[in-house]
Amino acid sequence: MTASLETRLAALEREVALQRDHIAVRQVIASYGPKVDTSDRIERARLLAELWTEDGVYDIGGVARFEGRTAIAQAFESQHFGQVPEGVCHVFGLPYVKVDGDQATALNYSVVMRPDDTRGDEGQRFFPWRVSMNRWQLVLCGDGRWRVRHRLNRLMQGHAETLAALRDIDALAAGADL
Amino acid sequence: MTASLETRLAALEREVALQRDHIAVRQVIASYGPKVDTSDRIERARLLAELWTEDGVYDIGGVARFEGRTAIAQAFESQHFGQVPEGVCHVFGLPYVKVDGDQATALNYSVVMRPDDTRGDEGQRFFPWRVSMNRWQLVLCGDGRWRVRHRLNRLMQGHAETLAALRDIDALAAGADL
Amino acid sequence: MTASLETRLAALEREVALQRDHIAVRQVIASYGPKVDTSDRIERARLLAELWTEDGVYDIGGVARFEGRTAIAQAFESQHFGQVPEGVCHVFGLPYVKVDGDQATALNYSVVMRPDDTRGDEGQRFFPWRVSMNRWQLVLCGDGRWRVRHRLNRLMQGHAETLAALRDIDALAAGADL
Repeated sequence: MTASLETRLAALEREVALQRDHIAVRQVIASYGPKVDTSDRIERARLLAELWTEDGVYDIGGVARFEGRTAIAQAFESQHFGQVPEGVCHVFGLPYVKVDGDQATALNYSVVMRPDDTRGDEGQRFFPWRVSMNRWQLVLCGDGRWRVRHRLNRLMQGHAETLAALRDIDALAAGADL
Repeated sequence: MTASLETRLAALEREVALQRDHIAVRQVIASYGPKVDTSDRIERARLLAELWTEDGVYDIGGVARFEGRTAIAQAFESQHFGQVPEGVCHVFGLPYVKVDGDQATALNYSVVMRPDDTRGDEGQRFFPWRVSMNRWQLVLCGDGRWRVRHRLNRLMQGHAETLAALRDIDALAAGADL
Repeated sequence: MTASLETRLAALEREVALQRDHIAVRQVIASYGPKVDTSDRIERARLLAELWTEDGVYDIGGVARFEGRTAIAQAFESQHFGQVPEGVCHVFGLPYVKVDGDQATALNYSVVMRPDDTRGDEGQRFFPWRVSMNRWQLVLCGDGRWRVRHRLNRLMQGHAETLAALRDIDALAAGADL
């Protein structure tokens, strides 16, 4: 009986750890929006870049590929810092997450919303500026936290490379639901 | 004491299985976007249709009701296949999920974004084409995977039938939080 | 050995309860959209207001601060009730959730979509009317359900107070992933 309890307990521990990883990966992704949309200067962008591993990569569609936290933080200087005081909002769609040991991959969409200043006060609206797919590759670090080692971001404009990355869903979702 | 451990272990097993189902249902829904937005031909639409049970139904607001995987795959031929190379993006809002044994219901919103080609290069924007409510009815299949047996999709234009389906939230959320 | 089983079981119970709270808080937030978008009269708005505690607060950016369920229900009378039959859709982005005992805080974005009637039938579109940050402060009530005691909603227009509230992500995400 104790053996049976031991077996069941060990199975539960594995399953609960997997479910924790599923929630944790979603948390890392969910923290990006509030962090980026308050990053109006390099000090805050450096905090944002800590979502990545030291040598992490952020490959931004239509912009450039940034490698390492310093480069990632600087990526926001030219355009994003100026958008923060105008209002800019990174809304994230539901992610598909695959956890494999201390590695994880997630696919989700992001919509960057900005106020539409072409309209009068009465007709306040926002507009979807960038609509992108994101493929997040994360790693569970020694301190127990998941960090991004590679994020591919591509505008959803039908390019072959973008669709190829998105088709990763086939392999990711081929096995069990989580 | 062993009896107590047994009781607690059994309670944990039930709870952990329920939480797994909650994550799994969200995964099925989250996999739809990347699958549909890369479905530019019937072979890929057939893979997409495998999210449904063999006799599953997809009832698309303003389009038609499709029954069975073959019909569901063909539903994308007339319009969607042509949109994929232009860029089309099914962004999903947070779902409310109710699991009841091997059945589950989920309510969420979907926003289909498309590039706005009426603007010049400088002013790249996207626009929300279809904004819909979705009621997903899923079943846990023999292979351990959740599949869709019925998906109702309706544009959020205030029609009485749409609001009636959305009011399912009252019964779904009447009991415990999950 | 039994002592070790007891220790492991207790650790699992704590972890599974935490994960349940994480899912439960997301469920409360996810139920808001279907409830509000079917609230076309005071009776339904009162059901919606039950997501809050009796003395809960809903502080709506650009509108007003409402305290208590009665006031919260009435907040929807002047404008929202009339939008429901036209179609109005509260799409929610992925929330970041921090649970601390019987208290929880969540940050997420909301996008209120409405049909764009300035376009003809052919070109049906929706538009993002309000894009907001939301800071939800919830409490686990005696009946085992999470309820909102304070929700701060602010349009993402770059105001200092809005950005300050959003920077709460720094403290929320400073510790473990969940």
